[in-house]
Amino acid sequence: MVLMHDVIIIGAGAAGMTAAIYTCRKKLRTAILSIDVGGQTNLTSHIENYPGTGPMSGIELMRRFQDEAVGFGAEIIMGKAVKSEKTEDGFRIGLANGEEYECKSLILAYGKVPKSLGIEGEERFMGRGVSTCVTCDAPLYKNRDVCVIGGGNSAIEGTLELATIARKVYLVHRRDSFRADEITVEKLKNSPNIELVLNSVSTKVIGGKNVDGIEVEDIVTKDRKELKVDGIFIEIGYVVDTNFVQHLVKVNEKKEIIVDERGNTSCPGIFACGDITPVPFKQTVIAAGEGAKAALECYKWITGGKGAVLDWTH
Amino acid sequence: MVLMHDVIIIGAGAAGMTAAIYTCRKKLRTAILSIDVGGQTNLTSHIENYPGTGPMSGIELMRRFQDEAVGFGAEIIMGKAVKSEKTEDGFRIGLANGEEYECKSLILAYGKVPKSLGIEGEERFMGRGVSTCVTCDAPLYKNRDVCVIGGGNSAIEGTLELATIARKVYLVHRRDSFRADEITVEKLKNSPNIELVLNSVSTKVIGGKNVDGIEVEDIVTKDRKELKVDGIFIEIGYVVDTNFVQHLVKVNEKKEIIVDERGNTSCPGIFACGDITPVPFKQTVIAAGEGAKAALECYKWITGGKGAVLDWTH
Repeated sequence: MVLMHDVIIIGAGAAGMTAAIYTCRKKLRTAILSIDVGGQTNLTSHIENYPGTGPMSGIELMRRFQDEAVGFGAEIIMGKAVKSEKTEDGFRIGLANGEEYECKSLILAYGKVPKSLGIEGEERFMGRGVSTCVTCDAPLYKNRDVCVIGGGNSAIEGTLELATIARKVYLVHRRDSFRADEITVEKLKNSPNIELVLNSVSTKVIGGKNVDGIEVEDIVTKDRKELKVDGIFIEIGYVVDTNFVQHLVKVNEKKEIIVDERGNTSCPGIFACGDITPVPFKQTVIAAGEGAKAALECYKWITGGKGAVLDWTH
Repeated sequence: MVLMHDVIIIGAGAAGMTAAIYTCRKKLRTAILSIDVGGQTNLTSHIENYPGTGPMSGIELMRRFQDEAVGFGAEIIMGKAVKSEKTEDGFRIGLANGEEYECKSLILAYGKVPKSLGIEGEERFMGRGVSTCVTCDAPLYKNRDVCVIGGGNSAIEGTLELATIARKVYLVHRRDSFRADEITVEKLKNSPNIELVLNSVSTKVIGGKNVDGIEVEDIVTKDRKELKVDGIFIEIGYVVDTNFVQHLVKVNEKKEIIVDERGNTSCPGIFACGDITPVPFKQTVIAAGEGAKAALECYKWITGGKGAVLDWTH
C-alpha cells in the first residue's frame, strides 16, 4: 500500500520550497522529491538581492527555506523522478531507484540542468577536471590555474569566487561585454588574477590523465590558442528536462512547462513554477513568488475551489 | 531645474522596495515616492510565510526591505502622487504638496487603499473609533470591547492581535466559514475572548460623541442587533486607485493596471507590479517577485534592450 500525499512537489529550490511552505501551512500532506536541496540558488556564492535577509550565500539562504518548509511539516525524499502517470485518484511518480509515490496533486518545480559545451574532451573529463559547479569544486583548485566558460551572472560570480582560491582564472566569453549587474562586472575588472578572454569560444579540452588546458578560438580572427589550466568550469546556463512528464503536460518549444499566471498547467491537478516554466529572469525571489502562486492554486484545486480567493490581502 | 531620475518607483511596499533593490544594483538613479513605507505588509502582525527570514512582524520585514533598498542607493521621497504626464524625455510626477519630479521611467507599485463599508456613521467616525489599521490603532483599545468586520486573513490576524489587548473582540463575517490558513483559523476558534458573529453584515455605526456600538444584520433571518463596542476595525480588503495614471496606462474593469508577465504596461517606459496589477493571491513574496521582474524589465528598457536576457541563471 503506497502512502497517498495531498501534494508531491518535485524540486527543492526556491520555487519548490516556497510552494511547500504554503501547502504545509494549508495543512496539505506535502512531500518534496528532489535530487538536491537548494537548486540553482546553491550555486551563487553571495546573494545580495533576495529582499529581507541581508547578504548571504545561496546555500545558506536555501538552508533557511528548507528549515522553514520542514518546520511546517514537509517531508523531503531524496531521489530522481523518472516516471509519472495519471491514476484514478491523482498521480503516481516513479523514482530511478524503483520507489513509487502517489499523490492527489503535483507541483513541478525542479528547474534546470546544466548545459554542456558539446566539445571534444568535455564528457571524458566531466567530474575529473571539468565541473559545472564552482561552489562545489572551487576548493580543489587552491593556487592552481582554472578557466570559466560563460558570460552571465553565474559565470562572473563563479570567476570571482575562484579568484579568491585559484592562482589565475581565465574567463572565456563569446561576446565582448557582460550582461551581469554593473557592480559585479566592476569587481571582475578590478581583480588582478582574472584574465578576460573575450570574443572567444572553447573548442577542445586538452589532457591526458588529467586536464592540461583548454583550446579557445577567437571568433573574429579565428585564431586558436591553448590556455594552460588544471580545471574548467562550464557556466553557460541550464536547460529544462521535462521528458518524464511530457505525456501529461504541454511544453513549449524550449521544453519548458507552459503555465498560466497562477501556475496551472494543461493538466488539472498538476502545477508548475520556477525555472521549469517560461517565467522570466530566473531570480531566487521571482522563483519563490511563483512557488507561492502554484501552491495556493494547488490548494484551491484540492479543496474543490473552496479556497479560491481574489481578494486576499495577506 | 528639476532633477532627472532614471526611475521613480511609486509605492514602498514589498513590490516597490524589491524593484528599488534591483534597479539600484543596476546603477539606475532610483527614487521611491510613497505615502508610507511598508505598504500592506505592515498591517500583518506576524508573517510566517515569507521564505528565508523566519517569522517576524510585517513592519519589521518591510524595515529590512527598506534598509536594503536605501543601502543600495534608493532615495525615499514621502508624498502622494496626484499628477502624471509624459514629457519629451520621460515622465513628470506631481505631488499633492506641489513638488514635481522627473524621470526616464516609472514603476507603479503603490498597491491598494482600504475599502469602506458604505454604511451610516462610518465616515463620520473614521479615525475616531472607526479604523482600517489594527496594527496602528489596537493599543488604543486596551481592556475595551471592539469588533472587526471581515473574513480574510487580515481580518482574522487583526482579530487575534486585538484579542491580546482588548477585553472582547467580535468578528463580524458575512459568510459561515473562513478562507484563511487553517492554522490561523484554529487559533481564532481557541481564543476565549473572541466571539464570532457569522452570516452577518454591519448596517450602522452607532454613537454620539464617540462610537457606542455597531448594528449588525443576520443575512439569513434578517434580524438586527447592536454590539456594544468602543472601536470598529474595517478589514474587508483594498481597492486600487489608479485615477492619476489612467490617461497613460490601460487598466482593467477593476481599475488594476494591465501588465504582461514581465511588468510591462501599455505605455513604453512605465512598468507596474504588485497589488496594483491583477497579480493573484496578494502575498508579500509574490509582490516581491513581481517587483524584481518589473525592475529588470525597466533596466532592459532604459539600456535600449542591451540588458535583455532570457538565460540568466541568477
